[in-house]
Amino acid sequence: MHIDHCFARPPIDPAFIEQLRTRFGTSLHLTQAMLHQHGSNEAHFDVVLPDAVVFARSTEDVVDLVRLCVAARVPIVPFGAGTSIEGNAVPVRGGVSVNLGEMNAILRVGAEDFDCTVQAGCRREELNEHLRDTGLFFPIDPGANATIGGMVSTRASGTNAVRYGTMREAVLSLKVVTPDGKVITTATRARKSAAGYDLTRLYVGSEGTLGIITEVTLRLHPIPETISSAVCGFQTLEGAVDTVVQSIQSGVPLARVEILDDMQIRAVNAWSKLSLPEVTTLFFEFHGSPGGVAEQVALVEALATANGGGDFAWSNLSEERAKLWKARHEAYYAAVAFRPSAVGWTTDVCVPISRLPECITETKRDLQASSVPATILGHVGDGNFHVIFAVDPASADELAEVQAINGRLVARALAMEGTCTGEHGVGLGKQEWLVEELGEAVDVMRVIKRALDPHDLFNPGKIFALH
Amino acid sequence: MHIDHCFARPPIDPAFIEQLRTRFGTSLHLTQAMLHQHGSNEAHFDVVLPDAVVFARSTEDVVDLVRLCVAARVPIVPFGAGTSIEGNAVPVRGGVSVNLGEMNAILRVGAEDFDCTVQAGCRREELNEHLRDTGLFFPIDPGANATIGGMVSTRASGTNAVRYGTMREAVLSLKVVTPDGKVITTATRARKSAAGYDLTRLYVGSEGTLGIITEVTLRLHPIPETISSAVCGFQTLEGAVDTVVQSIQSGVPLARVEILDDMQIRAVNAWSKLSLPEVTTLFFEFHGSPGGVAEQVALVEALATANGGGDFAWSNLSEERAKLWKARHEAYYAAVAFRPSAVGWTTDVCVPISRLPECITETKRDLQASSVPATILGHVGDGNFHVIFAVDPASADELAEVQAINGRLVARALAMEGTCTGEHGVGLGKQEWLVEELGEAVDVMRVIKRALDPHDLFNPGKIFALH
Repeated sequence: MHIDHCFARPPIDPAFIEQLRTRFGTSLHLTQAMLHQHGSNEAHFDVVLPDAVVFARSTEDVVDLVRLCVAARVPIVPFGAGTSIEGNAVPVRGGVSVNLGEMNAILRVGAEDFDCTVQAGCRREELNEHLRDTGLFFPIDPGANATIGGMVSTRASGTNAVRYGTMREAVLSLKVVTPDGKVITTATRARKSAAGYDLTRLYVGSEGTLGIITEVTLRLHPIPETISSAVCGFQTLEGAVDTVVQSIQSGVPLARVEILDDMQIRAVNAWSKLSLPEVTTLFFEFHGSPGGVAEQVALVEALATANGGGDFAWSNLSEERAKLWKARHEAYYAAVAFRPSAVGWTTDVCVPISRLPECITETKRDLQASSVPATILGHVGDGNFHVIFAVDPASADELAEVQAINGRLVARALAMEGTCTGEHGVGLGKQEWLVEELGEAVDVMRVIKRALDPHDLFNPGKIFALH
Repeated sequence: MHIDHCFARPPIDPAFIEQLRTRFGTSLHLTQAMLHQHGSNEAHFDVVLPDAVVFARSTEDVVDLVRLCVAARVPIVPFGAGTSIEGNAVPVRGGVSVNLGEMNAILRVGAEDFDCTVQAGCRREELNEHLRDTGLFFPIDPGANATIGGMVSTRASGTNAVRYGTMREAVLSLKVVTPDGKVITTATRARKSAAGYDLTRLYVGSEGTLGIITEVTLRLHPIPETISSAVCGFQTLEGAVDTVVQSIQSGVPLARVEILDDMQIRAVNAWSKLSLPEVTTLFFEFHGSPGGVAEQVALVEALATANGGGDFAWSNLSEERAKLWKARHEAYYAAVAFRPSAVGWTTDVCVPISRLPECITETKRDLQASSVPATILGHVGDGNFHVIFAVDPASADELAEVQAINGRLVARALAMEGTCTGEHGVGLGKQEWLVEELGEAVDVMRVIKRALDPHDLFNPGKIFALH
């Protein structure tokens, strides 16, 4: 597929590669297979190979790599698990992909303070596995088993955000290697601070364009006393969305509420071998004390019934819950696999909750008129939802159609005072929409980028065009 | 008192004043009384007069003022209610104080989306008064009836932050006049977004150094079904702090938990005509459903008893609650008034909750060895507490002693991985400590400041030295 973010680039200087080899030895990789792995992505963007891949094993490795790259004016692109879906880690101007996956240590758990510090390459599932005996958990859950550093960089959120917030709220402090090769710590472990500019939040969501994150201090939460999951099918899409909106407006502290439309349920049934009724369905999770959960459930069940929802199918057993949420997490793969030899093309928007029914039903109508199979799913408690297209990559017509539907979707969300991306990031796919959304505020972002990365070497070509 | 943040400055150009008069007419003020009001502060910092005061009535007024000031290279300092306590709004290099207090309109309440948009000069008490019939409230409560814009600028928090977060979490979006005279909106009304750099959070806490905030979109919260307040005295300071730490570590979602030490209770009794036992006391507030509040209270009462706490004195009536919290809010004035002709000198730190008992008891010992009357009070659920000294402003010895105690307090907090200011901001008082706390990260802040405000005209001399 064509994207116009690829740039003609000069061949890499062999002397620079030799510098890398001298410093990094066997951590430097130049094989086609390795370059391809770091140049590809889980979505529809073109593969663009880096010139080299370096596996960092310490902050010092990253410092030295940054200094070498900056001195040679070579781009440097951080790479975590490669699970982002707006082309966020594709090295569109070549250079060095720095793989942080081996920096995956859990450095410290402060059970008394509900926090921990991990290296950027630690994955969220491994962190939760490690935390299991502490009674704490890390709630942010974008579906994929992403690295924490990657989740910081894209300001990830996911299924638990409606209750526990996004990476914006989850990060207490970062260790960052800046473009001038300094190692900074953006904040202390204090729960709150008024000490200067909020550099932590500046780096959260900056997609590797302002430096390389090597360590992350995270807030954790106590595992709730009671966790209860339920699935509920609805006669109509409107009924499902109205149930969510009314639950949120009633102040119910839902831990998770996910929508899967009829098409998505069909795909999930096939992929995860379930037999859910093939109608628009909500997946709920309730957290709290036994009494608190009972209060929440009673209210939400009544709202669902009033909106044409069926009976709640409950699972309080952790294995059943795990199966249900595994199916939800694999929904993206399910949606793409539902059409043989299709590729995934996904988008996400987020609107104020009062506008969600209108936004989602208009979008569904648009999808029903399209020839490309597509599903809707999302974290509707936040007003956030995704569309996943299963596209024939050989069909220019289909690609054009998907682009047009995406354009109408984003324009619809912006007209409703929403955002062009709730959680995927801007990456390569949403750059024009970012300008549409925030106008001259993007100029302020550019000023900051130029000041901190004057040679435009850190994940260049992402979020906005600089030139 | 001497501060070394005052700079020799050239006299203002009369032609510039004429430009202001032409554009702003009667909104321009040059009387000594008006200059004095905008050059003074609620704490111990020297009065430094601005050259002029302009009352802005619209974003357009601010744009024009910014353009005039930048063209003439005259400093511009935003002024809200004047309730900040680190000298944050003192115009140490002169120039124009822009008073936003008349931009106090509540522009929109989105009851369905739990949000609202206000002009920067709106005060928090007026906002809550306005919201009363909606069933929603704005929880951030720093004590003083500050303007929302001022609270954004200092990243204020206060009594409810342990449950509802600080201004960092409360702000959805800002309208800002940038140093180049553009009006930007930093985000949409979507509850979450991954669209580019988090300019909202960059401006929250930037103390007017990066532009002038003119409108704020805020998250609101449903007024809880049940609100219950209690006061509990303790035999020891340790017992009170341990009760807080254990409550937090047990996951109790306290809405408020404030400590007032014996000295502070004595001052509050005198000021607010109460007769609380003069021992270290916790003020609690519990929010939730009737069942949820009962669960919280049972747990916290048991912890308090185990830690040498007395009986809980309850007030579920809103007038009684209001009286209690009014006394808490006036604690600063009470502490200063307790010593005739003293001035207030206050400081605040925040540490990880596990270190709070040690930090607060060591501090108390230091205060007991001092000749200057001082009280401890704070938002201990966050690990945040204040010391208020009632200083004789004519005594150089006392001032030196207070400075030394403050230095030891901040060093203690930093050694415990805490911050030099939990909520007051850096202003004039914490600049050296900011560097001690964050080291080279402050250089990154300076790079951002220079890039966005190249002539150093926006509240110059605050947060960090640029030169």
